[in-house]
Amino acid sequence: MRLSRFYLPTLKETPGEAQIASHRFMLRAGMVRQQAAGIYAWLPLGLRVLKKIERIVREEQERAGAIELLMPTIQPASLWEESGRFDAYGPEMLRIKDRHDRDMLFGPTNEEMITDIVRSSIKSYKQLPKMLYHIQWKFRDELRPRFGVMRGREFLMKDTYSFDASPDDARKSYLKMFAAYLRTFRRMGLETVPVKADSGPIGGDLTHEFVVLAENGESDVFMDKALIGKPVPDAGTDFDGDLEGIFSDWTSLYAGTDEVHDEEAWSKVPEDRRLSLRGIEVGHIFCFGTKYSAPMRARVQNAEGKEVDMEMGSYGIGVSRLVGALIEAHHDEDGPKWPMSVAPFHVGLINLRAGDEATDKACAEIEAALEAAGVEVLYDDTADRAGEKFARMDLCGLPHQLVVGPRGLGQGEVEWKDRATGEKSNLKLDEAANRIASLVKTELDRLAQ
Amino acid sequence: MRLSRFYLPTLKETPGEAQIASHRFMLRAGMVRQQAAGIYAWLPLGLRVLKKIERIVREEQERAGAIELLMPTIQPASLWEESGRFDAYGPEMLRIKDRHDRDMLFGPTNEEMITDIVRSSIKSYKQLPKMLYHIQWKFRDELRPRFGVMRGREFLMKDTYSFDASPDDARKSYLKMFAAYLRTFRRMGLETVPVKADSGPIGGDLTHEFVVLAENGESDVFMDKALIGKPVPDAGTDFDGDLEGIFSDWTSLYAGTDEVHDEEAWSKVPEDRRLSLRGIEVGHIFCFGTKYSAPMRARVQNAEGKEVDMEMGSYGIGVSRLVGALIEAHHDEDGPKWPMSVAPFHVGLINLRAGDEATDKACAEIEAALEAAGVEVLYDDTADRAGEKFARMDLCGLPHQLVVGPRGLGQGEVEWKDRATGEKSNLKLDEAANRIASLVKTELDRLAQ
Repeated sequence: MRLSRFYLPTLKETPGEAQIASHRFMLRAGMVRQQAAGIYAWLPLGLRVLKKIERIVREEQERAGAIELLMPTIQPASLWEESGRFDAYGPEMLRIKDRHDRDMLFGPTNEEMITDIVRSSIKSYKQLPKMLYHIQWKFRDELRPRFGVMRGREFLMKDTYSFDASPDDARKSYLKMFAAYLRTFRRMGLETVPVKADSGPIGGDLTHEFVVLAENGESDVFMDKALIGKPVPDAGTDFDGDLEGIFSDWTSLYAGTDEVHDEEAWSKVPEDRRLSLRGIEVGHIFCFGTKYSAPMRARVQNAEGKEVDMEMGSYGIGVSRLVGALIEAHHDEDGPKWPMSVAPFHVGLINLRAGDEATDKACAEIEAALEAAGVEVLYDDTADRAGEKFARMDLCGLPHQLVVGPRGLGQGEVEWKDRATGEKSNLKLDEAANRIASLVKTELDRLAQ
Repeated sequence: MRLSRFYLPTLKETPGEAQIASHRFMLRAGMVRQQAAGIYAWLPLGLRVLKKIERIVREEQERAGAIELLMPTIQPASLWEESGRFDAYGPEMLRIKDRHDRDMLFGPTNEEMITDIVRSSIKSYKQLPKMLYHIQWKFRDELRPRFGVMRGREFLMKDTYSFDASPDDARKSYLKMFAAYLRTFRRMGLETVPVKADSGPIGGDLTHEFVVLAENGESDVFMDKALIGKPVPDAGTDFDGDLEGIFSDWTSLYAGTDEVHDEEAWSKVPEDRRLSLRGIEVGHIFCFGTKYSAPMRARVQNAEGKEVDMEMGSYGIGVSRLVGALIEAHHDEDGPKWPMSVAPFHVGLINLRAGDEATDKACAEIEAALEAAGVEVLYDDTADRAGEKFARMDLCGLPHQLVVGPRGLGQGEVEWKDRATGEKSNLKLDEAANRIASLVKTELDRLAQ
């Protein structure tokens, strides 16, 4: 992609409202633009990251056996009256009257609607288990939206719902999502930890938050250091097999939010492994039994011929929030440092003298060779000053930078910079594209394992 | 994909509210489910078609040089007050008050918001032209939603907006979209015709509707028969080059909706080439000059150093509506007949005796071989009756069907049915997957040209 064609409205000044790094860099790099409090337009650079996150989430959901559908954003209030949540939800629900004065709402979540869909077609345990998910914009009318996309009002979420005929089977569905989540975040280059969470008034043990460890996190987390860097289930994992081993392997190490913190269990963690940190919640999984199926009469005949309420679970990932969380976890003072799998482009190519025959030709050749190898390139072909180009490329945070100038070209060389480490070195012009393409591929493969 | 894992809630009865084929089949095949008047959940089979349409639209937009972003569904009323449309829009606009009693709305279209985004960053003709698009859910509170997704309230639309420094350049942007639209619909296996449309109170010649010719269309179209089957610009078309030839080649042949029908021009079409038909509007392109940029003060400095309002155009495609239009154009009494490029799966594989060692093995091998070749397979591995399986597969409308039963297997054969023609023949078991994979690939390549 040539920058002259792209739409990248970067800002030189840091907007006053941005208190944390991710918010600051997303505005400055032209990734998003606020259109109303907590409501953002995703500009091209930001949308590319959002779509890559979405793709990883989708691939891991499919691997775990979940099937994609798409529920609408606008829902009828009647479904929420069935579950009792229409009155209970409070002012965060965006309530709407349509032209016929019917009560509608912009979905903040979809338990009611998916239960309605499934109860209409599933009548027997033989049709179960089912895990259905969608990736859709939700709206929660936060009193004080802040921190950019981290706590917006309109946000993109992946939510999966599982339906089973017995609590034992529901646990199996839960474990599938638990394992899928471990893989999902790691593939994005994120260190997340599953943390025991508060199950609220419903009770039950089966609920975990997945948190990214980051200074600007909103929750306090107490955890065993041994959880950090733990290998996640690999791509060959059999999700229809027994996942209890994976689950106990992770959950036998202490990790809890402050809401459920257990001093006694904590005291048994060896002192040098006790970590108390801040975390950003990026996923929450929950097995809630018949909370919705019972009032909404979503029932199946079980193997014994008895009518039972379906056992359900729900499993969320904050897709748009992850863009912010990724920056919080990976940045320096100049901008984000994107992991390869979620980088908006893999390589930034800078032409130091756009319009010069030699640098134009060299850049066009590198661009073509990289793109032919499946590498995504943002090519700065503008006439801007060198300093401006360097700062802008750092702000974009692409993993690799290649800088082509007349001086280097004279010696048959281009400069390569690794954005994450800041290391620079010179590459032979005729080897640069191959070399970088191979580094990109290796890193993508490593993250996909 | 194994049917036992998929979620395909087909209906045996035709729902009473469905008056046209597309609505009927989409409900019966479990492609969508109505959640409120004109508001649908897209079930897995329907979502797969929707996503394929979206992908084709996206690829052709990118080819033409448009850049993707994503605007939110909820907009502040203030932008619409600037353009004067907040009061003018009427009851089709879904108006919302948030918890702070601020006026918001669910976007029915995005001219105001994109103008606001672009005016904040583009100040010079040197930054132009720009074509920006998004694919997002819109809401229009239709008085009487009907015909399923053809006239729903919540619907998916691709809308592109062009920004130029002069009317001449705006015309170039318009021609790019004109050519892109010709390719877009043809790639979906649709015969569409660009038809001169009513430009409304703004005036100007540059507006065309793209209509699919179909009995159940809502508009009357008068056209020269020579437009049918006309070759569209090929994949190698240079969108930065001169597109006037393509434009005049198509527009010199008469085609108009009844609103702009010109009896005199019509009388000059040779009588045997005059067609008067019904059409379904699936795209509308529009060059509207400074209608929004003037009141919203979206201005640039032009090459002469003068401040001018940007020249704009907007270009819509009804993405969710296209699913219905495709069925209207391609179906028989048993269900849709999907063109390969938008088929939810390429091949339906039916196991006539699921549980039988030989048929299970043959089906698993065919499934694996097809998938390894990149072919998407829906494999009916259920224990349902053969008649039920055949009817369901016809209702799904996948281009190829392979039927594996004990009798055929005894002779080393499987049955192949072409869904579009209904032709059946037997294939050698060990050649079936290769043969079908090659047919699928040939057809996909043909449509992508």
